[in-house]
Amino acid sequence: MQYETKSRSVLKAISWRTWATFTTAVIVFIFTGAFALAITVGLLEVFAKMGLYFFHERLWQKISYGKKEVPSFVLWFTGLPASGKKELASRVFEKLRADKLKVERIDSRDVRPLFPETGFTPEEVNKHIKRSGHLAAMLEKNGIIVVASFVSPYSASRNFAREISTNFVEVYLRTTPEACEKRDQQGHYAKARSGEYQDFPGIHFDYQESDAPEIVLDVDCISVDEACEQIVSYINNNVLTGKSLSRK
Amino acid sequence: MQYETKSRSVLKAISWRTWATFTTAVIVFIFTGAFALAITVGLLEVFAKMGLYFFHERLWQKISYGKKEVPSFVLWFTGLPASGKKELASRVFEKLRADKLKVERIDSRDVRPLFPETGFTPEEVNKHIKRSGHLAAMLEKNGIIVVASFVSPYSASRNFAREISTNFVEVYLRTTPEACEKRDQQGHYAKARSGEYQDFPGIHFDYQESDAPEIVLDVDCISVDEACEQIVSYINNNVLTGKSLSRK
Repeated sequence: MQYETKSRSVLKAISWRTWATFTTAVIVFIFTGAFALAITVGLLEVFAKMGLYFFHERLWQKISYGKKEVPSFVLWFTGLPASGKKELASRVFEKLRADKLKVERIDSRDVRPLFPETGFTPEEVNKHIKRSGHLAAMLEKNGIIVVASFVSPYSASRNFAREISTNFVEVYLRTTPEACEKRDQQGHYAKARSGEYQDFPGIHFDYQESDAPEIVLDVDCISVDEACEQIVSYINNNVLTGKSLSRK
Repeated sequence: MQYETKSRSVLKAISWRTWATFTTAVIVFIFTGAFALAITVGLLEVFAKMGLYFFHERLWQKISYGKKEVPSFVLWFTGLPASGKKELASRVFEKLRADKLKVERIDSRDVRPLFPETGFTPEEVNKHIKRSGHLAAMLEKNGIIVVASFVSPYSASRNFAREISTNFVEVYLRTTPEACEKRDQQGHYAKARSGEYQDFPGIHFDYQESDAPEIVLDVDCISVDEACEQIVSYINNNVLTGKSLSRK
């Protein structure tokens, strides 16, 4: 819960009084032509109203009318390993944060190390994605925007994440295993080909595409800047309607 | 992110003006004795200042100084099955919510049905508790108070939850398997005794007590009201110092 400190109310009272007393003195001067009277009324007003303003602020602190939360949503990046999810998701995350929105970043590479017992069989991956989807949905429910990036190659667990979320925006980075392998600096594809990894998406089984992801990005044809712009535009037009993100 | 609507600012402007113009008119009247002049100055002021106040409010909307968040924490209820965790945790949750705090409730009986593949072996339970602890910690990190209740009989996974949280308050409901079995309306203890359940805490293995839980409640000796009061008192004195919960 957010609250406002007393010193904020004091500062607002001083800030307001500076403007307001000046206005009062000018009005009195215009009507009476008496400069000294204008100053006296102004000074007396300073003391009487500064206190009144402070109490007015503290009273409104307790009134919730007109205090709104920006709508939250889950922005779920999915696609083959080395398709560029992490970079793009982090870019969008930074942008949302720069707009002072409450936003959390969840990436497979940060979550998996916490749970080293999680394997890579279809069953284990589905469990991992379902738990991560639950985490995202709970944050979203509590007013936090979530930027998540997981290979999440199986539609079953991706749909689970969608169904328990309220505003789920699936961002699918469409590409080919061959293009990803070229980008793959950590040699995961090579290890999968050599048999060191099993159940590797793009090598041992196809990525299961969703019927209608909210955003499909052909990442081999567009730049990161363009992709970022498309996502921000989608969010502005379909999720945050009325409370636009700034476009930088 | 919370924001304030324009209509809130309009209402505050009207509310303020009512008080302030009355004060101005009285001051002018005291100094000049001229009733008509006091009214005229007052009226002119209404129009000039209402607008000024509105813009002053919109400007302060953008200033974050003095806007604070109530500290968040994880309140983790642990203890044998049928020790009374759910009832007590829900009671504390309702109290926090009544105080308009941002609070989320996580109970094993709500989380497990989402993940029916989660079993009851020590390994599966530890995974489940670690994931639930991660969920709690992420909510806490984002300013949400978490009221969690899980049997969580193994200290390893309970400590994991503690370590990834910032303010972790462990509430241990201390009792005996015998006392729990008497309270157990769903017959879980009977099923465990008959061999229908394996790995049942209190029957097949001892609950692993923590070295120093923040709050230990001997639930067979105190009422739910007393337990609730102890917890609220602990939160007020150790977590929310300065931003007390109301004691009802």
